[in-house]
Amino acid sequence: MKDTNCGYCMRGELLDKFGIYICDLSVSTLILFKEQSHPGRCIVAYKDHVSEIVNISEEERNAFFADVNRAAVAIHKAFKPDKLNYGAYGDTGCHLHMHLVPKYKDEYEWGGVFEMNPGKKFLTPEEYEDMIQRIKAEL
Amino acid sequence: MKDTNCGYCMRGELLDKFGIYICDLSVSTLILFKEQSHPGRCIVAYKDHVSEIVNISEEERNAFFADVNRAAVAIHKAFKPDKLNYGAYGDTGCHLHMHLVPKYKDEYEWGGVFEMNPGKKFLTPEEYEDMIQRIKAEL
Repeated sequence: MKDTNCGYCMRGELLDKFGIYICDLSVSTLILFKEQSHPGRCIVAYKDHVSEIVNISEEERNAFFADVNRAAVAIHKAFKPDKLNYGAYGDTGCHLHMHLVPKYKDEYEWGGVFEMNPGKKFLTPEEYEDMIQRIKAEL
Repeated sequence: MKDTNCGYCMRGELLDKFGIYICDLSVSTLILFKEQSHPGRCIVAYKDHVSEIVNISEEERNAFFADVNRAAVAIHKAFKPDKLNYGAYGDTGCHLHMHLVPKYKDEYEWGGVFEMNPGKKFLTPEEYEDMIQRIKAEL
C-alpha cells in the first residue's frame, strides 16, 4: 500500500522537502518537521497510505494514537511547550498523519491554530540533529 | 473536574456562544459548531476538564478516539465531504476537544488548514436542527 508520489511512503527526496526521519514507532514513523517556527514540531505518519482514521481498524487506530501520545510525551519532556496542538489535514494527499505542534505562551501563533507551513524558520543540519537527539532521548 | 468558565464543562450560555449540544458519546460530548462555513463541522469534547491526550490513561484515550471516529463516520455519511480534518488546539483553554472539519473539493479552505472560527456562516435554528438530525441518524 504505497503511493510513489507520497513522501511518507517513499521517504528519500519526497520526504526531504519538508521533513527528517527520526525513527519508527509501533505503526507509524516519527518525522521532524523542517520548518521550526514552533520548536520541536513533528509529524507522526501512519505506516500505510490510507486517508483517515475512519479507514483503519479499531486496533490500528489505538496503536496509532498510542504512537501519537508517545511522541507528544517526548516533545513535552524535551521542549517543555505550554501546549501541544494536534492536527490532521491532508485534503489533497491521502496518507494519514498528524502534525504535533508545540506552542509556547505568548510566542508564535499562541492562542490560535497553526499554519500548515510558515516557511520562515529552518535550522542547520547540526541543529536538526541536536533536536532529534533530544526527542529520541525522551521516547 | 469542572471549570466554571469552560463551555464544555458548564454548557448553557458558555456553550451557546459557539456550539449546540448534539448528544453524549461514550466518554465525550458531540457538539455542532455554529459557524458552518464547512457544512457538518462538529466538536468532540472529552468529558473531563483535562488539557491534552497526554493527561488521560490509555483506556480513556482509546475511548475518546473511538468517539471521534464514530462522529467522523457519521459526518462522512451525512454530508459526504471529500476529507475530514481533525484538529485539537486549546492553547488558552484546557479542555481536551477535537474539531472535526469537513472539507469539500475546491470549496472553502480546501487544501489547507482551517480557521479556528471563520465567523461568516451561521444558520437558522431550523437548519441547525436539520443538520443535527442528519448526524444523529448516522451515529
